Amino acid sequence: MILGTVKGTVYSTRKMENLKGLKFLLVQPVNGTKKDMLVAADTLGAGIGELVLVTTDQTTQYAVDHPTPVDAFIVGIVDNPPAME
Amino acid sequence: MILGTVKGTVYSTRKMENLKGLKFLLVQPVNGTKKDMLVAADTLGAGIGELVLVTTDQTTQYAVDHPTPVDAFIVGIVDNPPAME
Amino acid sequence: MILGTVKGTVYSTRKMENLKGLKFLLVQPVNGTKKDMLVAADTLGAGIGELVLVTTDQTTQYAVDHPTPVDAFIVGIVDNPPAME
Amino acid sequence: MILGTVKGTVYSTRKMENLKGLKFLLVQPVNGTKKDMLVAADTLGAGIGELVLVTTDQTTQYAVDHPTPVDAFIVGIVDNPPAME
Amino acid sequence: MILGTVKGTVYSTRKMENLKGLKFLLVQPVNGTKKDMLVAADTLGAGIGELVLVTTDQTTQYAVDHPTPVDAFIVGIVDNPPAME
Repeated sequence: MILGTVKGTVYSTRKMENLKGLKFLLVQPVNGTKKDMLVAADTLGAGIGELVLVTTDQTTQYAVDHPTPVDAFIVGIVDNPPAME
Repeated sequence: MILGTVKGTVYSTRKMENLKGLKFLLVQPVNGTKKDMLVAADTLGAGIGELVLVTTDQTTQYAVDHPTPVDAFIVGIVDNPPAME
Repeated sequence: MILGTVKGTVYSTRKMENLKGLKFLLVQPVNGTKKDMLVAADTLGAGIGELVLVTTDQTTQYAVDHPTPVDAFIVGIVDNPPAME
Repeated sequence: MILGTVKGTVYSTRKMENLKGLKFLLVQPVNGTKKDMLVAADTLGAGIGELVLVTTDQTTQYAVDHPTPVDAFIVGIVDNPPAME
Repeated sequence: MILGTVKGTVYSTRKMENLKGLKFLLVQPVNGTKKDMLVAADTLGAGIGELVLVTTDQTTQYAVDHPTPVDAFIVGIVDNPPAME
């Protein structure tokens, strides 16, 4: 999974029907740059500046209750920045 | 998902039967370069210069009504360029 | 999908049984380098120098009629190099 | 699969229900940098500094007994750093 | 698929039960560096120095007879280094 920081919110009015109601957040991978930024769906209520775990591709489907065309999903909010030995 | 800008249209006459009628757009990831350009299917009617959300791999299949051999699909058109804190 | 140019053919005699008869082509992504080269299966008859659309991962399975262990498949031959605005 | 070294543990209290009880480890790919770091689930008991094999995406599901929204899973602990010819 | 050269063998005693008996090889992509090295399962008997085709992610499952948590599998041994025009 990707460890990243929430950097903003993405609003989209014209979108696929099965995406209605889903919140999209900009996430920048830890140690990455703006170039590595991705957009992930969120149902946990992650806030700007929080460190999150993002799962990708088909495994996102185990975070939702109906088939959803998103390839990145926030599945956890990290308690503290982990020590990296 | 990838946040990107629509840069052009790709036309293909000789293609898989189950791709007939599908529109293909060139999308350049925000903060990316031409080297990062990808081709995504579009049914939302995104136009050149618009900012879009692209889902990838198997999750594209939740954006179509029959199995389709495409690994990138435009699932939303972004209202405004998001602020990136 | 990847937009790339066919650069050569790859021959493999010792391979998985369910790959027999399938043609493999070297494809270099547009704006990419040799380092980005990948091998894609082809049933459309793409020739050296042609610009093609390649789908990847599990979505390749919608381009074949039986389960096939390939993660890149040529699904379209592009009419003309697209303008990139 | 990715060959990487365990660098730390990631703790998350607020997370998806189907992730409860699963341990998350920071893994840095061999020959990679901090920028390449990923987070993988672990049930084998890998320790800090150990060399591990990580499988990704949908294939992680064959390492668990119920659908789990994680895209990286430690599937083996490597005996010795492999010689690289 | 990835075109790569077999560089070594990876041994793992502590691993997932459904990986027992499977051989793991280090593969370096052609035109890539050590940083790009990956570990692929092999049942074709590829040897050190041989050029191979590696399929990735979920499509690996079409190279095995039971669900297996590996995301890279050697599906062909290449006859000769391909000419790259």
